Amino acid sequence: MTEQILPNGDRLILRKAQTSDAAAIVAYLQNIADESDFLSFGKGEFTITPKEEEKYIVSVDKSDNQLVLVAEIDGEIAGVLTISANVKPRMRHIGVLGISVQKKHWNQGIGHILLQEMIRWAESGKVLRKINLLVSCENERAIHLYKKYGFEIEGCLRRDMWINGQFKDAYQMGKLID
Amino acid sequence: MTEQILPNGDRLILRKAQTSDAAAIVAYLQNIADESDFLSFGKGEFTITPKEEEKYIVSVDKSDNQLVLVAEIDGEIAGVLTISANVKPRMRHIGVLGISVQKKHWNQGIGHILLQEMIRWAESGKVLRKINLLVSCENERAIHLYKKYGFEIEGCLRRDMWINGQFKDAYQMGKLID
Repeated sequence: MTEQILPNGDRLILRKAQTSDAAAIVAYLQNIADESDFLSFGKGEFTITPKEEEKYIVSVDKSDNQLVLVAEIDGEIAGVLTISANVKPRMRHIGVLGISVQKKHWNQGIGHILLQEMIRWAESGKVLRKINLLVSCENERAIHLYKKYGFEIEGCLRRDMWINGQFKDAYQMGKLID
Repeated sequence: MTEQILPNGDRLILRKAQTSDAAAIVAYLQNIADESDFLSFGKGEFTITPKEEEKYIVSVDKSDNQLVLVAEIDGEIAGVLTISANVKPRMRHIGVLGISVQKKHWNQGIGHILLQEMIRWAESGKVLRKINLLVSCENERAIHLYKKYGFEIEGCLRRDMWINGQFKDAYQMGKLID
């Protein structure tokens, strides 16, 4: 757990998620669903239950290649970063990144803080050797952020999402961990 | 269900998997694990139980965007093709392809037969609009096959698998379904 003061004066607590966060994480994800067109779910489409989220946090906690990080401000969740990974020996070195920040907390560097902590965790863990992510080709701010932290574009996937009646392409980006 | 005679005279039955195939599919996948270095699992690494496979077949059967096809010769499974897909509205148009053929039945066109049937199924289903797959950059025969059926290389993922003590890159390939 670390604490830091954001540019706007907010005090941010960064920590691993606990099972007691499950309901708050689900509520957070339901809330942000209509704040961005760059998520894998839209308004009313996040259907994981708090019980399922709790199970997920337990399984992440038991694994050595997965992570759920929460950024907390005033006792509320302001951002979440997840690394999901496979148990298969041939694939367990690959983590898949998901990240989101609540709109009212945008432009305070929370994405940077979450990514920096994830990279520190991955580099010290010695299990993950690659982080993958998918990002909408239209999400220039996110692409810029990922590049800053060493992610490179490895491909462009056609029709990766169906949003507001249109297919959207996505960049596959990856970062080697050594 | 369709039947056809292969170049070597074998009679091949092509059909959707049923729950009663679960144990045979698991045994088949365990058997082929050491026949190829291009699978996501090696010898002893396929750990899905028949019960779990049965559940998977049931969920595939209930969905409108997933498929398990088996190619059967003399009452034994000779090849399997799977399309896995997500329930999320933004992603349910994407199917992810997995395919394998038992080594003793290689070079009889079973891969072609499975792919042709999958494409026919996807095109008539109107739900899937994109098929994705990952293939080792070293698996030239498979890449050639996929290209023949309209898959295009959309990217090259570094370190996509860890096989025999080495990282292997993979091509991300995709085919639009219209």
